[in-house]
Amino acid sequence: MSSGARYVFGKNSVKALIETHPERVFKIFIAEFLKPDKRIQAIRDIASERGISVQVVPRAKLDQMLHQQAPSPKAQVTTVNALGEKTKVQALDEDSMNHQGIVASVAPKALLDLSALLKICDGKKAEGKHPRLLVLDGVTDARNFGAILRVADATGIEGIVIPKHHSAGFGPGVSKTASGAEETVNVAVVSNLNQAIAKLKDAGFWIAGAANEERAVAYYKQDFQMPVALVMGSEGEGLSSLVQKNCDFLIKIPMHGTVDSLNVAAATAVLLFEIVKNS
Amino acid sequence: MSSGARYVFGKNSVKALIETHPERVFKIFIAEFLKPDKRIQAIRDIASERGISVQVVPRAKLDQMLHQQAPSPKAQVTTVNALGEKTKVQALDEDSMNHQGIVASVAPKALLDLSALLKICDGKKAEGKHPRLLVLDGVTDARNFGAILRVADATGIEGIVIPKHHSAGFGPGVSKTASGAEETVNVAVVSNLNQAIAKLKDAGFWIAGAANEERAVAYYKQDFQMPVALVMGSEGEGLSSLVQKNCDFLIKIPMHGTVDSLNVAAATAVLLFEIVKNS
Repeated sequence: MSSGARYVFGKNSVKALIETHPERVFKIFIAEFLKPDKRIQAIRDIASERGISVQVVPRAKLDQMLHQQAPSPKAQVTTVNALGEKTKVQALDEDSMNHQGIVASVAPKALLDLSALLKICDGKKAEGKHPRLLVLDGVTDARNFGAILRVADATGIEGIVIPKHHSAGFGPGVSKTASGAEETVNVAVVSNLNQAIAKLKDAGFWIAGAANEERAVAYYKQDFQMPVALVMGSEGEGLSSLVQKNCDFLIKIPMHGTVDSLNVAAATAVLLFEIVKNS
Repeated sequence: MSSGARYVFGKNSVKALIETHPERVFKIFIAEFLKPDKRIQAIRDIASERGISVQVVPRAKLDQMLHQQAPSPKAQVTTVNALGEKTKVQALDEDSMNHQGIVASVAPKALLDLSALLKICDGKKAEGKHPRLLVLDGVTDARNFGAILRVADATGIEGIVIPKHHSAGFGPGVSKTASGAEETVNVAVVSNLNQAIAKLKDAGFWIAGAANEERAVAYYKQDFQMPVALVMGSEGEGLSSLVQKNCDFLIKIPMHGTVDSLNVAAATAVLLFEIVKNS
């Protein structure tokens, strides 16, 4: 897990963070070129209320922060500005973060333990709704973990449970694909995944394992109107055998072509959106 | 678009390719360490029938092919073998191709034109089933395009329509995330996306645009029991305005958190699996 201050980029991500966790925001940097709009105004209002300093800086400073935190592995490309000057810049992926002229410097996300996450789930139950969790068993690729955080945020589930070892952690590769969701999703880190699953069962969760197996039921035929913890394995290995044994039921995404699995983030998106669909 | 011979890696990908397009396979390379199994035997049987040569080579040769075609942008990592010898190797992402001891050298994928793709759709109609297509409007990131090809393969749709310009093409980054699907999915390249959409309408397709807008209907409330062409825009820009205007209806994935969109491959997975669900 990384430590020390880090950056959050983009209007939506900065706005979401300052609205939900203003105490974690040290400072806001806004590029000179940025035209004020509703979102920027909302950010400035909260910053002003909370005494968070807002500094206007040249765009280059934000570019530097972006590449410092998430150095692009791609080749440099040459860009030409309005004056005809050529500059070499890092090519960014389409789905990578763009700072959009605004960056927040923030305290690192506080990770939860399982009991704190279960308390959050109790809050959901108190509203008469079913809490939903995601458990990751061996997802070690940072880009996939980032994309999964983004899916978890978008589905509004209560949080993610990851094992202390054999996980992606919160490195730069995660921020690159999480789009700010690494700051908004509750993540509980546990020492032993199977013990955690036992605790989830005790707390009333049904454990749904994703497994592309004959005996698994097609995901859209399964009822999810209950507290559900979806367990996803790594793409190569799938669920570890003990974890799979500890699942209450197995679900699968029927494959109609020649590839035998989906990317784990894409599969998580299909399954989690189905689970929360009628919530 | 790339040209010349290229490599396909992994048991499932090689098996799928030699089963569906044996005429495109030049040669099979198998690593010395590989233990024979059912899939390998199936590949060897077809190769033998079709007179495709199979060569057993040291693992290092396959590693070389893998990195030649899809050079990993990641840092080198040091590995230690059973004898305690250290080797520097490229770190691979969890979801990147692994050659699994088998590689096929293949002729490049022949791209279709739209009328050829529509003929394939007619075949589906003749079976009494609804054809489904995916149209990409400005997806230029290679990793996303690769992941989308993998989703397209998995959902069994008839094919993908991409514009000639402002598309990702079929570079190494695509193979890295497509898992072989770049060889199995029908892809039609068109000069003008809006003219192509008009032709799809003439052919009886309903054009469903993915747009995260108020007036768009939640994807799970939409009936898809018809010939559907799903149009996905780029993450940053969404659908271009003319394309959006040409859609018959707009669908969205409701976002329950703070991020305002999903990664385009994850969104495509959620929507396409819903569309083919009851097929």
